Order: sequence, then C-alpha cells, then structure tokens
Amino acid sequence: MHSNSKQLWRDVQVFDGQALLDEAMTVRVDDGRVVGMWPSRAFTEADAQGAVEAGQGGVMTPGLVDCHTHLVYAGDRAGEFEQRLEGVSYAEIAKAGGGILSTVRATREASEEALLAASLPRLDALLADGVTTVEIKSGYGLTLSDELKMLRVARRLGELRPVRVTATLLGAHALPPEYAGRADDYVSLVCDEMIPAAAGEGLADAVDVFCEGIGFSPAQCERIYQAAQAHGLAIKAHAEQLSNLGGSALAARYGALSADHIEYLDEAGVRAMAEAGTVAVLLPGAFHVLRETQLPPIDLLRQYQVPMAVASDANPGTSPICMPSLMANLACTLFRLTPREALAGMTAHAARALGLPELGRIAVGAAADLCLWDIQHPAELAYAVQSGRLRQRIFNGVITHAL
Amino acid sequence: MHSNSKQLWRDVQVFDGQALLDEAMTVRVDDGRVVGMWPSRAFTEADAQGAVEAGQGGVMTPGLVDCHTHLVYAGDRAGEFEQRLEGVSYAEIAKAGGGILSTVRATREASEEALLAASLPRLDALLADGVTTVEIKSGYGLTLSDELKMLRVARRLGELRPVRVTATLLGAHALPPEYAGRADDYVSLVCDEMIPAAAGEGLADAVDVFCEGIGFSPAQCERIYQAAQAHGLAIKAHAEQLSNLGGSALAARYGALSADHIEYLDEAGVRAMAEAGTVAVLLPGAFHVLRETQLPPIDLLRQYQVPMAVASDANPGTSPICMPSLMANLACTLFRLTPREALAGMTAHAARALGLPELGRIAVGAAADLCLWDIQHPAELAYAVQSGRLRQRIFNGVITHAL
Ligand SMILES: [Zn+2]
Ligand SMILES: [Zn+2]
Repeated sequence: MHSNSKQLWRDVQVFDGQALLDEAMTVRVDDGRVVGMWPSRAFTEADAQGAVEAGQGGVMTPGLVDCHTHLVYAGDRAGEFEQRLEGVSYAEIAKAGGGILSTVRATREASEEALLAASLPRLDALLADGVTTVEIKSGYGLTLSDELKMLRVARRLGELRPVRVTATLLGAHALPPEYAGRADDYVSLVCDEMIPAAAGEGLADAVDVFCEGIGFSPAQCERIYQAAQAHGLAIKAHAEQLSNLGGSALAARYGALSADHIEYLDEAGVRAMAEAGTVAVLLPGAFHVLRETQLPPIDLLRQYQVPMAVASDANPGTSPICMPSLMANLACTLFRLTPREALAGMTAHAARALGLPELGRIAVGAAADLCLWDIQHPAELAYAVQSGRLRQRIFNGVITHAL
Repeated sequence: MHSNSKQLWRDVQVFDGQALLDEAMTVRVDDGRVVGMWPSRAFTEADAQGAVEAGQGGVMTPGLVDCHTHLVYAGDRAGEFEQRLEGVSYAEIAKAGGGILSTVRATREASEEALLAASLPRLDALLADGVTTVEIKSGYGLTLSDELKMLRVARRLGELRPVRVTATLLGAHALPPEYAGRADDYVSLVCDEMIPAAAGEGLADAVDVFCEGIGFSPAQCERIYQAAQAHGLAIKAHAEQLSNLGGSALAARYGALSADHIEYLDEAGVRAMAEAGTVAVLLPGAFHVLRETQLPPIDLLRQYQVPMAVASDANPGTSPICMPSLMANLACTLFRLTPREALAGMTAHAARALGLPELGRIAVGAAADLCLWDIQHPAELAYAVQSGRLRQRIFNGVITHAL
C-alpha cells in the first residue's frame, strides 16, 4: 500500500476521462495529485526531479467510477435464479417469499458486521477491476434502523478499503410488507424519519427513489425530493426502466444528479435532463439479466448532449455482476455505445453523476486516482473480457494493486 | 507450485461434474489422484492418515474444461470493434483488410516466440478463472508452416503453464486469399499436407472444419474427415452456426467428438448426434457478441440426451472473452440452460467433447484437477459474475493458484 509520494509514469497512452490523448504521455504525481502531464517527447529530466519511476507503457485511465450499485446486502438469489431456469414461475417464487423481499428479510436479519463481511468480497471484486470510487445505495432495510445500518456499512467499506464511497439513501426502493396498502404512510416514514436521520448523521450524500408502477408514483417521489432538498441531500432516480412515467423529467426539475436505467425515456424527458444537467446512467447489466429489448434512447441522449454514464447496478436480483469492465463490453454490445463513450461513462460522466466532477479524469490538479492497464488501446477494455489486464490501481497517488 | 502429495479437503460441497452431491464431503488426494471421497460425517481420522489438510469448506468442482478456443493468435481486433460502433460498415472494414484475414496476416507475420507471448496472458486469464484443461485450435495460419507454428505454440503453452492442452488443426477455418476461387485446391493442401504433418509430428489431437456457406462445403469437410481418420485424428466441426447445411449430421457420421455452435441444428441433426455420441458444444460468447437471435435447439438436445458442453470460443473476432465463468452466466441467461447444465457443460461434458471422459469429474481414481470456490452453492458460479471467488485451483493434485 505504501509508495513514494512523488512518482512518474512514462510513455503511457492516456484516456483522460473523455478521450484518448494524441501521443504517449509522461504523468507526474506528487502527494496524491497529478502535478504534471507532458508528451513524452517533450519531457525533460528536470521535470522528473525528485520523483521515482512507477510505471512505463500501457494505457492509463482515470480510476473507474461505479456510480450506481446496491453492493450492500445479505443473502443471495442464486437459488431463485436456478429455480427460474428449472421452470418455476415468478409467481411461485414470490409466493415462497422470493424476490427482493427475500433480500430485505436477509438484510434486516443480518448484523452490521455480517452485512459488512458479506459485502466486502463484492467491493474487492470491483477494486480488482479498477474501481476507485463507488456509489452504494441502501434500500434492502426499509425500516429506519435497517436503512441506517446499510448506510453505516457503506461508510465503513470506504474506511476498510482504499476507495471513495458515496452513500445514497434508497428508502423508496420497495414497499415493505408491513406497509402493504399504505404506500403514502411509508413515504412519510422515508421523508420524516429516514431522510432527516441519514442527513443528520452524515450517512447519506444523496437520496434515490424507484419511480415505477411497481415502485413509487411520481407524486410520492416528489415528496421525497422535497424532503431531500430540505435536508441538503442530492437527488437521484431509478426512472423509466419498465415504463414511461415522466420520472426522469420530474427528477430533472428537482436538479437531480442523475436519472438511471431510462430505457423508456422519451424526447421530452431527454430535453428536461439536458436542461437540468442531469446525467443519464445506463445499466446494461440489468438489461442483460432481464433480457430486455427496449433500448435506452442513446441517439437522443447524444443529440441533446446529455452525458451518459455506465454503471454495474450490482445487486442480487437483476445484476449480480461486480465487474465494471464487463459493463463497458455490455454497453457497447447491447446499447451500441462506442468504446470511448463507454469509458467516459465509467469515468468522467460517472463522477458527474455523483456530483464529483473533479474525479474521473486525468488532469493537472486532479486527484491521482488512476488505472494502468496492460493493453495497447483503451478500446480493448470494452472489446475483450479478460482478467489480469489491470497492472496498477492507484488511489490518491498510492499504488494499491499491482499485478 | 509445490505442495504435499497427500492432501485432504474437508467439508466441501462437491459438484462432481454432473450434479451436486447431497452432503458435505471430505476428499482425499494422493499423488495427483482422488483416492477417497467420504460424507464428512462418516470420515474417520484413520482415513486421514498421512495427509495434510489443504482446505475446508466452500464448493469443489472439477477443474474447468474449456473445450473450444482459438486462443493462439497475434494482433487484436479492438480497432475494428470500435470502428463498427462508430458506424463504419463491415464492407468498408473488409475492404481495408479487416476481419479474420487481418488476424491471419498478423499471425503469419508473428514469430513463434511472439505468438507465444501474445497468447500467454489469455491462457493465464482462463487459468485464473479455474480452467485446468483447454483445447486450442489453429486456423489463423492457413499455410502448412503457419498452421504448424500455431500448433507448436499450443503445445508449448501446455508446457509453460500447469494446464492440459489439447490441440486441434483447423486448417479449414477460412480460405486464404492466395487460394481465392480455388477452395478445393486449398482443401487438398489441408488433407495432403497439413493433416499428415500435424499427425506425424504429434502436434494435433483432432481436426476441425468451418462447415458453412462462407466456410467450407459439406463435401469439402467430408474429404477432410477422411484424411483425419486416415491419420488417426479425432474429428470436430463448426456447424450450423449461420445456416443449416447438415454439417453436424455429417460430422456425426464420421464419429465426431463434437459439433459446435449449432444454432441452426434441426431434429435430424440432433438425432444423428445422439446416435453417434457426438457432444453439442454451445458457444454463448459468439452469440452475445454477434447479437444472434437464433437459439440452439436446447430442448431437442435434452430430449435426445445429447450431452451439452459450454465453451468460451475465445477468439479475436466473435468472442474475445477469456472468462469461463461468464460463459456459464451467458449459457443460462441467453440459452436458458440450468446452472447444473452449464457447469456439467464446462466439466464432464466438455471433457467428453475432447475425447477425455476421464477428466471433468470428481471421482475416486480420477486425476485431481479441481477448483475450490468461495461460494455456498455451485449455482452461484452461473448466477453472479465476480472475480475473487476461486480460492484454489488444483492441477494434478498440486495447488497452483491460491487466493
Ligand atoms: Zn438500481
Ligand atoms: Zn470456433
């Protein structure tokens, strides 16, 4: 974990968060920040003074930013996955207590320590694939104390590992069974207790909702946004995943950082996001697992210049995938993003979706969260699915993973 | 790499290549072979005599068998992948020298050492995901000397790493440009020079063909099968991937070990395979990358009890994926295999597709090629995509990879 505080990477191909730079670069990091970037042909030994060489060649990208995960949960749903493939119907699985509520049950039953232990291997898998910033949502507790427990675990994950964690309260993820038929009352619990407590204890950076027919209505989401704003928390939304309720435009009206999923987003929604500067977070893992066919409106997002992020959506039900480089492949293969768009979506645009635009890029003055890959061209990250290509993961200027 | 020659794994859930055993087992390995398997509750310390404990808990599977790869090649096609996503047409890419012929060009130009160096990271990625046996095809040389060069690299990979390699001559992969309009002459080169040389030098275990409208006709494939049989080599086929030419039934008539891809296979073909004992090798990676929609006839294969294997098809054009556990996920998600079928497809059935039915299973007397996974149930391997779960990879009784 320890390393010299002044380091040089020579002759690297730099993808700076938006594009591949034209020529091989030499990058200097002092005390956790990028302090110099030179075309290698213009680099002089004076520029190297006091620094040790930490790497040579390969492709350097910003550390990856996974801006939408549900990484903290107990139990798993492999049994249900198997049952469905063996022909058991969704209805039978639900009747037997399966689905999201089985994760809620397991997460409620788990102690904070158990939840931490269950989540750590998933975080480690993300780190091993180059993640240096990860957003983690609550949403499997659905009581005040269980939601706060999840958020505390998210914070502790960020203390246990060299990674930046942002935590998002997703109390409005599903209606817990004890509130059946009383969704508005549950929304009141979210607004009047969860949000104030999470904000007051500094446990959440943002508030998220599941705006959907099978989730919460736009009117309910709006109440939650108002509470979030009142407590100074940023806003995010799961919207337009299964139908078009105008959830993204609503979120945009409240200045949301991002609207996520958005397969059913229409042009009015895209326009609203463009005007508000709301990032479109694409989640190809869930699209793959659910075998969806409705594609997000990529061409409209391009046309209105809405920044597109790509995230793992790591969760036990619809995307049990802790591999951001696979997401780049899925984003290109399924959504027809270009490799450049996919990589920007996992770096600069993902950071913006977290309200952290200073991250996810390689620039003089930026924090030195970096990945050095054993490849020739950044497009290879989206093209091939292959472990063992991350030569170094650099967090805050410290090499924390080396092949 | 070194380890005690008598070892015990206690309290493991055993997937034996076909199914999960009912209770936790203790497995003993002496001198590279499984010599005892007991339900842990019936295990006595007398059974342990002389052996050291090498592991406890987790899921034990046979070492994975990747029975269809094109792992040896030079160059990559990431640039082409990027161009296609940026809107360049196939025709323009082909006119610029892209496609499979660009891989042929790079592979011909590469020295044996360069080809070895280029292929090793891909093999290492397979090993890191649990592979202990891998089939590697030639097919990017398309001259006598370049095909033999590829096969020599395949053999050397098996010497450099703790893995069993079987090598397959795929001279009839594509028509090289210098034979344009003279496909029958090229088939003569395959039959009269490549097959005798590969067999004579012990460089190939099997012969494969690409039986397709854009590949080689059934009549041409039949000539190749006859030559293979005359030289004592096993037979495999790429068949029914893009259309139904009856290639699988033809291969089955020649006693083929496997027919691979088979999206367009019909009932007559399935019946022919069942009668001949030919394994159906499913390749969901290429199906994913090419965004195919024609599913292989899984229900018919089940009905006729044709063993189904699952392989990576690792290749630079249509499946640049060196991750067998992802193939299990894709086989379940895209082809609706059950997790049990997918895992049998990557162990026992894959071994059979290589003519090595003694591999790919955990049984007393079998070679101790094993994986120990940090999971609770084998289905998790197909359900979740996550690195870091392979606690131990055991090759011939030696722990060659430990977390
Ligand atoms: Zn989500
Ligand atoms: Zn193939």
